[in-house]
Amino acid sequence: MPVPEPLRSSAPHVERARPVERFAARTAGMTASEIRALFAVASRPEVVSLAGGMPNLAALPLDALAAEVADLVGRDGQVALQYGAAQGVPALREQICEVMALEGIRADPNDVVVTVGSQMALDLVTRIFCDPGDVVLAEGPSYVGALGSFAAYQAQVVHVAMDEHGLVPGLLRDALRTLAARGSTPKFLYTIPNFHNPAGVTLAVERRREVLEICAAYGVSVLEDNPYGLLGFTGRVYPALRSLDPDVIYLGSFSKTFASGLRVGWALVPPAVRDRLVLAAESATLCPPTFNQLLVSRYLATHDWRSQVKTFTEAYRERRDAMLAALTTHLPDGFTWNIPDGGFYVWVTVPEGIDTKAMLPRAVTARVAYASGTGFYADGFGSRQLRLSYCYPTPDRITEGVRRLAGVLEAELDVVHTFGTPARTPLHRGPQAPSPDTT
Amino acid sequence: MPVPEPLRSSAPHVERARPVERFAARTAGMTASEIRALFAVASRPEVVSLAGGMPNLAALPLDALAAEVADLVGRDGQVALQYGAAQGVPALREQICEVMALEGIRADPNDVVVTVGSQMALDLVTRIFCDPGDVVLAEGPSYVGALGSFAAYQAQVVHVAMDEHGLVPGLLRDALRTLAARGSTPKFLYTIPNFHNPAGVTLAVERRREVLEICAAYGVSVLEDNPYGLLGFTGRVYPALRSLDPDVIYLGSFSKTFASGLRVGWALVPPAVRDRLVLAAESATLCPPTFNQLLVSRYLATHDWRSQVKTFTEAYRERRDAMLAALTTHLPDGFTWNIPDGGFYVWVTVPEGIDTKAMLPRAVTARVAYASGTGFYADGFGSRQLRLSYCYPTPDRITEGVRRLAGVLEAELDVVHTFGTPARTPLHRGPQAPSPDTT
Repeated sequence: MPVPEPLRSSAPHVERARPVERFAARTAGMTASEIRALFAVASRPEVVSLAGGMPNLAALPLDALAAEVADLVGRDGQVALQYGAAQGVPALREQICEVMALEGIRADPNDVVVTVGSQMALDLVTRIFCDPGDVVLAEGPSYVGALGSFAAYQAQVVHVAMDEHGLVPGLLRDALRTLAARGSTPKFLYTIPNFHNPAGVTLAVERRREVLEICAAYGVSVLEDNPYGLLGFTGRVYPALRSLDPDVIYLGSFSKTFASGLRVGWALVPPAVRDRLVLAAESATLCPPTFNQLLVSRYLATHDWRSQVKTFTEAYRERRDAMLAALTTHLPDGFTWNIPDGGFYVWVTVPEGIDTKAMLPRAVTARVAYASGTGFYADGFGSRQLRLSYCYPTPDRITEGVRRLAGVLEAELDVVHTFGTPARTPLHRGPQAPSPDTT
Repeated sequence: MPVPEPLRSSAPHVERARPVERFAARTAGMTASEIRALFAVASRPEVVSLAGGMPNLAALPLDALAAEVADLVGRDGQVALQYGAAQGVPALREQICEVMALEGIRADPNDVVVTVGSQMALDLVTRIFCDPGDVVLAEGPSYVGALGSFAAYQAQVVHVAMDEHGLVPGLLRDALRTLAARGSTPKFLYTIPNFHNPAGVTLAVERRREVLEICAAYGVSVLEDNPYGLLGFTGRVYPALRSLDPDVIYLGSFSKTFASGLRVGWALVPPAVRDRLVLAAESATLCPPTFNQLLVSRYLATHDWRSQVKTFTEAYRERRDAMLAALTTHLPDGFTWNIPDGGFYVWVTVPEGIDTKAMLPRAVTARVAYASGTGFYADGFGSRQLRLSYCYPTPDRITEGVRRLAGVLEAELDVVHTFGTPARTPLHRGPQAPSPDTT
């Protein structure tokens, strides 16, 4: 074997960084989400975590599922444990169309792409649409995982504010007009119309067509993310944006209606998008886990999954009620929050002078965790907001968590009053929708 | 609600494409792999598919697994069906270190990132290292899924040829010298040292350190992909490149040693890379499926998985032997192939004048499928090679498949001889390693 030559002199372009640290430019935009940093702390038993978005699986019929999964392996193990198609198992894609039909969507199973959670669909849709520097629109605040994917592909996020009826069409139009004047057409509007994460609000039905028309007029696609749509507390199911416009790209998930640990989500896309999405999915994971898909397919076929969703929803409503009651009881004047009709989250606005990000370590010291609002904006806003999740803890723990949080907030207020940021916030207290001018 | 204005005039920058077809530039590099196009055909029962790389799971103890998975859901369902950490389940990461120890790797579980198959690790490593236009080195031929990920991130692939002892160090040095002269330092060398896909060869032990030294001298990282390392037919386990250099990024998988349909793979990375990889993984799927990770963890803990790997390997050796015997019996003069010591693949070189890509439809008509060599090169080579997989069909089917293939090849040769591409290929026949000058 020849001995390697001393090559430094003939390789003048070696950079100073260690070879293994010569990262792509896109990694500069990848930062740890504030929520992720909290996970380690939130898992300590003495801390009441109102920070995470873990669904409550206590009501799942584990014994029946155990029998189902054993039968799956025993009978269909050779298929379930083998590679499958990149687009997903055909039988599951048909069932997914039945699930979407509940929200008024008429879909062809050929246009469904099964993904490893809807996060993967979000990431891949961004991959196939966004070049570095492209603009995407998103509600302000928006889902932290979406902001992470947009950053990973170096897309720029322009936020559009919400009010109590969700995304404000007039502000959407203003944003598009401003961008058009700069020569910029966003690649898509990313929106969570139902039981928004983190804002808790729902896009009014009468606004839905208007939002679609505005986007169409400006040549902007719509990316609808709908993990919570079936988790409404009133029994009302809202029509999906996709039900009004077949060009909408729709993302769905079984993480909240069945089990998040299986990581089964999907995208419903127009045929023009499908082939590219499948290619991107193949590059990302070859195929989604066959085993998990077949388990979800069996669950949908053999269990009364709609009753199960109803059971989940009742648990979430009970928890929401506990949280709202505790907020009303314990929070002092100057705080506002929304009343969510479904989903997992309450979005709280605090008085001027309190910085929810700076306060977080003090809250954790007081054994309560929340998600600071700053994680839900790409542009630095959100320091006067925080997200409280009522999905996972028991009602008693929620009450205790809010009580602890109120203590921390009161201490913050004392500091504000003593050292003096003038409190221009009106001393309103209690439920109020998120409004565009609170950030 | 205000009616949307007629906005076309105020949005002069709307592009001609439908909004939903305004794809990112990177999608231009995403093309359907030739192998994927074959899957639909290969699944017809009358076709003997020597094209796919599906592992043979017939020997899996399904009854024992069914009991295991039922117990997992019954006892630990609340954890198994819930979200987990983006980096993966800690207990499994420890067990992965024990698996890697078999190849001489000493690793810290903190440096292991669990992924949805090693394909996801490959995709994410490319994501965090490769800017558009960056060069990566890869053996020629190379794994089609790697080429797909490189294309998805717009990296340029420079192939380095192999001989019967794997990657040729002198050619690696030549390639790096040529690139350095152009001012280009590749981001990494992507290599499959053991039982290469598709070439079937193994990097000689005495070349391993040399390859690492050459890469280090030129400031190039090494990305070692090792899905087949434990599937050797001689009982010999080769030392991983990672065991010789802690800066090597190592990819592993349970798809071939346990079950591909669970999609559990991993990356072992230097600490400097780990945090970025975890962030990228979080953006890609939030977390790998908890359920699948716990199932693999239990399987490793409770089953004699090494004996199971040995059982798998014996089945593969029997199938390899059937394929080699059939090739020797049925192929006419002018064809060469390698003798793999492990893994799934035989790489065949055909006489000049035969185009393996053009021939494929005729082969499928004759009820046999293979993978054309062109899918394994980023640069258009490979039309005189084809990959035969012996992993999945029974020995009898393999023999029949090769017999059919030989018939098709003989018919091609007749055409070549009649219509006259001069056959400059020496009329050697039989086993011979892939050589750098055959393409």
